[in-house]
Amino acid sequence: MTKKELISHIIQKKSFLSIGLDPDLDKIPSEFLQLENPILSFNKAIIDVTRDLCIAYKPNLAFYECFGSKGWEILEQTIQYIGKDHFVIADAKRGDIGNTSNRYAKAFFDNLNCDAITVTPYMGYDSIEPFLKWPQDKWTIVLALTSNSGANDFQKTPMSNGEYLFERVISQTMVWGSDERTMFVVGATQTASIAKIRKMAPNHFFLIPGVGAQGGNLEDVYLAAKNKDIGIIVNASRSIIYAHKQFPNLSFQEAVREATVDLQQQMYRLLKSSGFV
Amino acid sequence: MTKKELISHIIQKKSFLSIGLDPDLDKIPSEFLQLENPILSFNKAIIDVTRDLCIAYKPNLAFYECFGSKGWEILEQTIQYIGKDHFVIADAKRGDIGNTSNRYAKAFFDNLNCDAITVTPYMGYDSIEPFLKWPQDKWTIVLALTSNSGANDFQKTPMSNGEYLFERVISQTMVWGSDERTMFVVGATQTASIAKIRKMAPNHFFLIPGVGAQGGNLEDVYLAAKNKDIGIIVNASRSIIYAHKQFPNLSFQEAVREATVDLQQQMYRLLKSSGFV
Repeated sequence: MTKKELISHIIQKKSFLSIGLDPDLDKIPSEFLQLENPILSFNKAIIDVTRDLCIAYKPNLAFYECFGSKGWEILEQTIQYIGKDHFVIADAKRGDIGNTSNRYAKAFFDNLNCDAITVTPYMGYDSIEPFLKWPQDKWTIVLALTSNSGANDFQKTPMSNGEYLFERVISQTMVWGSDERTMFVVGATQTASIAKIRKMAPNHFFLIPGVGAQGGNLEDVYLAAKNKDIGIIVNASRSIIYAHKQFPNLSFQEAVREATVDLQQQMYRLLKSSGFV
Repeated sequence: MTKKELISHIIQKKSFLSIGLDPDLDKIPSEFLQLENPILSFNKAIIDVTRDLCIAYKPNLAFYECFGSKGWEILEQTIQYIGKDHFVIADAKRGDIGNTSNRYAKAFFDNLNCDAITVTPYMGYDSIEPFLKWPQDKWTIVLALTSNSGANDFQKTPMSNGEYLFERVISQTMVWGSDERTMFVVGATQTASIAKIRKMAPNHFFLIPGVGAQGGNLEDVYLAAKNKDIGIIVNASRSIIYAHKQFPNLSFQEAVREATVDLQQQMYRLLKSSGFV
């Protein structure tokens, strides 16, 4: 998917929402556990009632790999079920030496046919290059400043030139790849830093997880992160896929839709306030 | 496997060799391509002639994920075939927010029954903690200074206190986990830094890839990295599993064994020179 197409999807749906498909057998409603393939049925039930409200789905690989080869099969079936009209982000946080990263790129871009993959920058340029250089309109989403408390341990370590490590990651990545194919992960809980990062990378899309269960506020994030092209995809996972816990009087699918509509409507109002829609 | 058991395996086999099981359909001999499951047959052929010469096997996940769910099935079958007598390292370089890393730990420690997993430290403590805290004798192998050229991009960036990033990763990890359960990845191509890292972490095992195809020299690495407990596992991958290209007059299995015996004999001489065997 090109950047232009992505922006057009956002405007058309009045939504910059990504839904994190992170199924957890301990949390999904018991009605699914009786089915032959609980996880796939759970994912399909979510996708069915959210297609028109979100522009992206983001399965996190850990939630599939913990079921081994069967989990990978469910991931393949889920991505196939999503189809071509959504931006599919493999939240895999991969990165290895060049010839190995090339295999990961093949796994996620070619075989799974994802539009994007998240990558971890610790191993430097040759670990990211195979993703950046993949043909077709595939995206590399580099971890910059994440939403978890551990972000303070290394990402926010000051370097000898005064930059933080995450700032160096961003400035280096901007040299390596263009904003037509590269995004940054910036956690929604990092509001104080988001505006600063936007100044560093005025044209890049940010993938922003951490709204909802992790505590980030949507309006604060939007105001700090938006750019002239909208420039943000906000991901929500637990607050949507386990919405039935917040709405005990609704069916599972009604609860998921209720939580998603609520987020999409907030996004619509924000986009409208900036004149994007 | 406990640290004591690992050391005992090394002494018994006179070898600190790990074999990287990184199968590539473009490189494996054509005789395997005609079989029903070329990759699994290739792995088994290697394991059959190297069991007595190495103490560990290290499948890199990228080489399995690029075949999707079928690849994961081959990985599961390969690990089952290796059995209980070797230290199995999932070279996965994972790391995510706490509840997600916990799923990865479950995938690799419980379901695949690996002894160890490599993890990437960029996301900090809570991304590593679920691995460190896993019950039983499971090991977390943290990327410190890798063998690739990209190691210069971030790992060797000086911080404001004069340390390099990889040194900070090592010193922090030493606070978080003990040397009975934690190792560091230190690339064999980084000989100038290995002795320095050994001074920082006198008791930890190092997993050292990069000997052979990537250019690291075994004796240099051994002399710089060994400690009172031996303290090193050296991995070779391409130089062993594609040894048939170096020995065109031998059968595939003879060539693999020849290359492995050569490395094991070098290791034996080094261990003997230090009085370990």
